[in-house]
Amino acid sequence: MQSVLDYLQKNQSRFLAELCEYLRFASVSAQPKHKPDVQACAAWLVAHCRQIGLDARLCETPGHPIVVAKTPNAAPRTPGKKPARKHFVVYGHYDVQPPEPLELWQSPPFEPRIEGPIIYARGSTDDKGQNFAHLKAVEAYLKTGTPLPCDLTLVLEGEEEVGSESLGGFLKEHRRELDCDAVVISDTGMPSLKHPALTYGLRGMMAFEITLHGPARDLHSGVFGGAVENPAMALARLLARVRDDRGRVTIPGFYDDVKPLSKFERQQAARYPVTDAQLKKLLGVPQLFGEHGFTPTEQRSARPTFEINGLTSGYQGEGSKTIIPAWARAKITCRLVPNQDPKHVRQVVTNYLKKICPPTMRLEITAGHGAEAYQVSPTGPLAQAALRALESAFSAKPILIREGGSIPIVNEFKRILGADSLLLGLGLPDDNAHSPNEKFHLGCFEKGQRMSALLWQELTR
Amino acid sequence: MQSVLDYLQKNQSRFLAELCEYLRFASVSAQPKHKPDVQACAAWLVAHCRQIGLDARLCETPGHPIVVAKTPNAAPRTPGKKPARKHFVVYGHYDVQPPEPLELWQSPPFEPRIEGPIIYARGSTDDKGQNFAHLKAVEAYLKTGTPLPCDLTLVLEGEEEVGSESLGGFLKEHRRELDCDAVVISDTGMPSLKHPALTYGLRGMMAFEITLHGPARDLHSGVFGGAVENPAMALARLLARVRDDRGRVTIPGFYDDVKPLSKFERQQAARYPVTDAQLKKLLGVPQLFGEHGFTPTEQRSARPTFEINGLTSGYQGEGSKTIIPAWARAKITCRLVPNQDPKHVRQVVTNYLKKICPPTMRLEITAGHGAEAYQVSPTGPLAQAALRALESAFSAKPILIREGGSIPIVNEFKRILGADSLLLGLGLPDDNAHSPNEKFHLGCFEKGQRMSALLWQELTR
Repeated sequence: MQSVLDYLQKNQSRFLAELCEYLRFASVSAQPKHKPDVQACAAWLVAHCRQIGLDARLCETPGHPIVVAKTPNAAPRTPGKKPARKHFVVYGHYDVQPPEPLELWQSPPFEPRIEGPIIYARGSTDDKGQNFAHLKAVEAYLKTGTPLPCDLTLVLEGEEEVGSESLGGFLKEHRRELDCDAVVISDTGMPSLKHPALTYGLRGMMAFEITLHGPARDLHSGVFGGAVENPAMALARLLARVRDDRGRVTIPGFYDDVKPLSKFERQQAARYPVTDAQLKKLLGVPQLFGEHGFTPTEQRSARPTFEINGLTSGYQGEGSKTIIPAWARAKITCRLVPNQDPKHVRQVVTNYLKKICPPTMRLEITAGHGAEAYQVSPTGPLAQAALRALESAFSAKPILIREGGSIPIVNEFKRILGADSLLLGLGLPDDNAHSPNEKFHLGCFEKGQRMSALLWQELTR
Repeated sequence: MQSVLDYLQKNQSRFLAELCEYLRFASVSAQPKHKPDVQACAAWLVAHCRQIGLDARLCETPGHPIVVAKTPNAAPRTPGKKPARKHFVVYGHYDVQPPEPLELWQSPPFEPRIEGPIIYARGSTDDKGQNFAHLKAVEAYLKTGTPLPCDLTLVLEGEEEVGSESLGGFLKEHRRELDCDAVVISDTGMPSLKHPALTYGLRGMMAFEITLHGPARDLHSGVFGGAVENPAMALARLLARVRDDRGRVTIPGFYDDVKPLSKFERQQAARYPVTDAQLKKLLGVPQLFGEHGFTPTEQRSARPTFEINGLTSGYQGEGSKTIIPAWARAKITCRLVPNQDPKHVRQVVTNYLKKICPPTMRLEITAGHGAEAYQVSPTGPLAQAALRALESAFSAKPILIREGGSIPIVNEFKRILGADSLLLGLGLPDDNAHSPNEKFHLGCFEKGQRMSALLWQELTR
């Protein structure tokens, strides 16, 4: 085992150069113009996995392809028989968020920039840097000839940022091949390098777009203004009615199935080593804001939200244009918690919006993707093994956290493969995931590789 | 005089070809990229005026140039002495609104398309087609050798759509040269070709932008959502509080100085020959909407408004992007009526927004241009002359209307030159001014030329 850890230590600069290659692909899954970049990135990953010694292939899907890479000579798994070796799936995604607004990046999003112990690039922390750490840990076993105590299958998809539409079908089709003891995922975060973390819960989500249509075309606001409702104003008034001034959603039924936080969970949340003042400074807000009766840690990880991601209406160019816009649109995502059902939430939200939409407007609602929240027991043997690997790799006592983001596919792994997921996030809170100047700490990269190498030992002890 | 009218009748097809030339200039004053087009349009106008026989020149300003064209051999005007001939200023503007959104045009905005009696192009009705009608009437006098009963100065500016910033200074500088008996302006509308109109009132305006700044950058809505206010939501909530659900502005002091409508004015408004059903159909709205206690005609011409012209926040591209936007912006124009003071309205609006802005947001207000409303007596000799010219040119009894749009410079003519303005609009209600597929009726063009030719006779009778 020491040779594996030594190999990792010795090869950091090469690993970093390879990570830069990986980050140069503008694999933006949401934007059709980047389809060739997504495909090139997948092809590069397959070639890289083969070079390491993995048995890798590209699986086409109705959307972007999935990269599958397996350690050689896997033990056969026959239903009903205990296999010779355990099998773990390592999940990650090679697609990234759109880089816009480009003008806020200090260096181009797809030209990685290294400054001290930090690498800046779109996808560096979410999720290329994180899944690459696992890949390098496997390489260390294979290249040093150290026997892996288990079989591994890496599944790297290209649609995580657009709802993992194809993954469910892929898992169903390859259910036998992917039959495993657990799924390991590094796509979340830890509070700091001194606080490695196991994430035992995730929020779900429900995305949609609201468009209010008013006049048949933009109207002169002088000639017609006053005798016709303004769609932008109608939208503002509609949105103002879904939430109160303390952050609580006012849509009837929205909180119907929310599982209350237990005393134990609130204690764990209180251990989270970020003060309100630090959070306020990190976000750069004049003041924190959130639902009454919950701490900021609870608000952003264990409470549902109704969030506007974008507003579009009328004239947005330079100068002024005196119009009544023909329509106004809001992009929305609701974050969900256990045990909210995205379908139910979508239904109550839709019902409410239809009910309060004024007769002067035609309401159009476009459904986006939905996913349930997730929770796994933090006291089971899988979690305990993960906590040991974290403690050893980071030389620090790990903490148990719930994360506010969504990894919808965690539910798919449970539902289709029957497997629990171990969420071992390597991101830091200020990594700017989904924002300009996304970054990844090289300490997280290196310790993440070590954690991954140790994890296979701990999981098979 | 008959030779003037005959000349007009005979030359319509050439006039139309020339109007097309004029409309091909993309003279968009709001967009810096179109500055060369604005300048080329002005230069073309000067050349065209000279060709007609006018004494024309380009006057540079701090913004876009102003074209000044005078009939030859003007009678000298000495302060205190009655001049030999009356002098009228004809005002128009050669700049146009931005053409966006381009995808909604059925043919390119700067490639005029003629279909039956209608010409489609940006600027066709607002205001190139209208001011060109006056130019052609002058041409008819000059080319037929018919003596004009008065002196005329055409003033065609290039900044009307961006608030006529330079015109005030220009009028002050050329106060002596522009000393006149009245200003004639065709930049408004008539209800139909059967209802030529004199507009005796205009609304004023007050433009500004509100930006709410929240977090220092776009945030991951999963990781941070719930513990931080969303600027798009804060903006919606702010905007929802400036107006009630019946269209009445709720900002304290907003209606302070509004002059109530007289019985006579309400009678004139009731003559306006457009039914609510026709208006609803014209605008393509599910339902009309407006302030309680006023008819749609009154609401859109004689009542102040608070109108959102554009909303911008967060992600607007394809697909979804799960962020909390760093900021959210609304472009706003308030329409004002006599006797509201734009400065006072700006002050009460600003005070109110500051008061209701939540402590989670930093409020930025950017002031745009402002202008007072305007009203002129519909029973004076100037108006009576105009009504006679209208009736003769259009063979129909003209009506007296108030228009909801703003022509800020009407106030400047009054303040600086001491001159009243005759608003003889040639546009039709469905001309799509400021909208895609702007158009102008060739009947308005031709009858407008005749009205202009007759007007100089009536004004000097």
